[in-house]
Amino acid sequence: MLVKKFQVKKELDITPFHVMDILARCKEMEAQGRDVVHMEIGEPDFPTPQTIADAGMEAIQNQQTQYTSALGLFELRKAISQYYNDHFSASVQPEQIIITPGASGALQLILSYVLRTDKQLMITDPTYPCNRNVTKLIGGEVVAVPVSSETEFQLNARLLEENWNDNIAAVLIASPSNPTGTVCKQSQLLAMADFLSTKNKLLIVDEIYQGLTYDIESETVAGMRDNIIVINSFSKYFGMTGWRAGWVVAPMQCVDDLDVIAQNTYLSTSTVAQYAALAAFSIESRKILEQRRKLFQQRRDLLCNALSELAINAPVMPQGAFYVYADISKYSSDSFMFCRELLESKAVAITPGCDFGEYQANQYVRFAYTTSDERINIGMKRLKEFLFS
Amino acid sequence: MLVKKFQVKKELDITPFHVMDILARCKEMEAQGRDVVHMEIGEPDFPTPQTIADAGMEAIQNQQTQYTSALGLFELRKAISQYYNDHFSASVQPEQIIITPGASGALQLILSYVLRTDKQLMITDPTYPCNRNVTKLIGGEVVAVPVSSETEFQLNARLLEENWNDNIAAVLIASPSNPTGTVCKQSQLLAMADFLSTKNKLLIVDEIYQGLTYDIESETVAGMRDNIIVINSFSKYFGMTGWRAGWVVAPMQCVDDLDVIAQNTYLSTSTVAQYAALAAFSIESRKILEQRRKLFQQRRDLLCNALSELAINAPVMPQGAFYVYADISKYSSDSFMFCRELLESKAVAITPGCDFGEYQANQYVRFAYTTSDERINIGMKRLKEFLFS
Repeated sequence: MLVKKFQVKKELDITPFHVMDILARCKEMEAQGRDVVHMEIGEPDFPTPQTIADAGMEAIQNQQTQYTSALGLFELRKAISQYYNDHFSASVQPEQIIITPGASGALQLILSYVLRTDKQLMITDPTYPCNRNVTKLIGGEVVAVPVSSETEFQLNARLLEENWNDNIAAVLIASPSNPTGTVCKQSQLLAMADFLSTKNKLLIVDEIYQGLTYDIESETVAGMRDNIIVINSFSKYFGMTGWRAGWVVAPMQCVDDLDVIAQNTYLSTSTVAQYAALAAFSIESRKILEQRRKLFQQRRDLLCNALSELAINAPVMPQGAFYVYADISKYSSDSFMFCRELLESKAVAITPGCDFGEYQANQYVRFAYTTSDERINIGMKRLKEFLFS
Repeated sequence: MLVKKFQVKKELDITPFHVMDILARCKEMEAQGRDVVHMEIGEPDFPTPQTIADAGMEAIQNQQTQYTSALGLFELRKAISQYYNDHFSASVQPEQIIITPGASGALQLILSYVLRTDKQLMITDPTYPCNRNVTKLIGGEVVAVPVSSETEFQLNARLLEENWNDNIAAVLIASPSNPTGTVCKQSQLLAMADFLSTKNKLLIVDEIYQGLTYDIESETVAGMRDNIIVINSFSKYFGMTGWRAGWVVAPMQCVDDLDVIAQNTYLSTSTVAQYAALAAFSIESRKILEQRRKLFQQRRDLLCNALSELAINAPVMPQGAFYVYADISKYSSDSFMFCRELLESKAVAITPGCDFGEYQANQYVRFAYTTSDERINIGMKRLKEFLFS
């Protein structure tokens, strides 16, 4: 037998998510019989609506399981176009829509395309960590602009301009945002797109929590400027996480190139998922999804009120997604330790700010309300004990 | 309304597949009512075995549609480990196996990992075109080694050594190969792995056509050296193309890093596909798949004989996959024109050699036998007319 000698020489220069440590510890604790309240998870606790599940089963029954084109089923691209028209009065051609294996596939596709020219991507700090990591993995660099509660944790045209340099290929903004749940107004996004237009650069808007907004109407900027790329997903609002289907709305002049990249990077999106997604826009599905949205809103209110009573405030009331980005600075100056200790002593799992960036990262933690009112109440009772006993 | 001004400035430096032109032209011709014989398609014409389809429907019925971990369902990783043991007498731990969204996802994952250190990937010319393109998309370079019928269109330890330079991070070999259908012997692969081991570099073996071999037993090199990474897929032998599920067998010491990259690039593989794939290893499934393999073998023999009668020879009898890489130099010195003219005049679609590289590319075309005996016979009759009338 040969002596084993292969050695991994270079450390990975992307950071694993700290929440993975939290998750691993959760599993150990649960194996020991402890009851963990999960508020770390970015996945709705509702199953896929039956209407959508039925359509998936029907596709399999009908042997619709061969490759589709890389751009996706034209029928689904048309349905998404219609959805923009019906719910957002937005005019998007089916030909501009590219079906992707989740928003992850969309991000990989878009960043591979965008960072071919200039190498930098402007993002916010805090941001969804994959934005940073995928950029690095394909050889790009991030320009992370610190954003605070003063700008609702969002970029605006002024910040963009102040942090601009000509090596930036595009600016990526998430609205509603993960981890903060804040929304960037359409007018603000368009102002940024217009600035970028003068530089012939692109604005990428991550709308994967679109539909999950509270107090306000959901918006889109899809199709509103010819230098805007929108990323969306069937995972969150439509409750289709494990199916792996999302989409991109791209300027027409980018679609041919994106098609070629898609053929190479993922070939095609799950055919079953695409047929299932066709049922996501029906009236029956909409009814289920809107009921769920209202439940999320109730949970948000419940959670924000409970946190506020403990002097753990979300400095900006989150208007979307299912996250509260809450300030723990009254109790700790190390958000990861705070999360670890809360988990160890009270079995409540949340995500530390350091997973989302560096700026004020030790001051914040993310609570996900992807669990029932009852579990949120238990979690808040335990948090109170943790803080005051 | 704003003046549209975004301009795509940089041309994509990866080539679209010429077969896409062929496909587009097929569609036009079919819309005009012409009957096209499709021998360009790299997808089995059989539906997913009912045993596997049933398992997929059952997963949906059971609401098994949430994210799995990035590494995939442990149950499936165990089943694959067992498969290696049962059919290849290979010892592979479940922990070494990573479930991916098809072989495309696997390639993206592995190349993102491997090309972090050194920037070059050694491949053969001809090769599956995505190998070149994904390398470029993530900022790497290919070292394409021309291979001919003399080495059965495969690399060997001598060629590898002759073309070696220390910027090469890994060598990628496909066995059975697309487009040539030739197999690289296990002993040859291990000799290359051992050479690479002296350089602390990796051998990546694309075994996605594993199981589809004729005259010879299917082999694997998974788990046989600690510097070998194997890519495989449920698409081809298992008939699950549109489901998008594949896997990687990696050295244990690479798995944690690959996990982190997977979390970022694709998050998780279709959960429905993973549960469906669990049924791929049953005795019932195996029976169906082996019947199909025998049909493929019959088709190969039919096609190779017919081509040979037309003096269009496969210089190496293909022993695997479902392709014949055939020499048309008696009739043309421009394989793309040959394919275009054959399609225009006789409505037979095949793939030109130039899709797979540059070396001898104008001399070869690829016939896929992913269609019935009857259609192959019609195709060959038309080809004869094309050549001799």
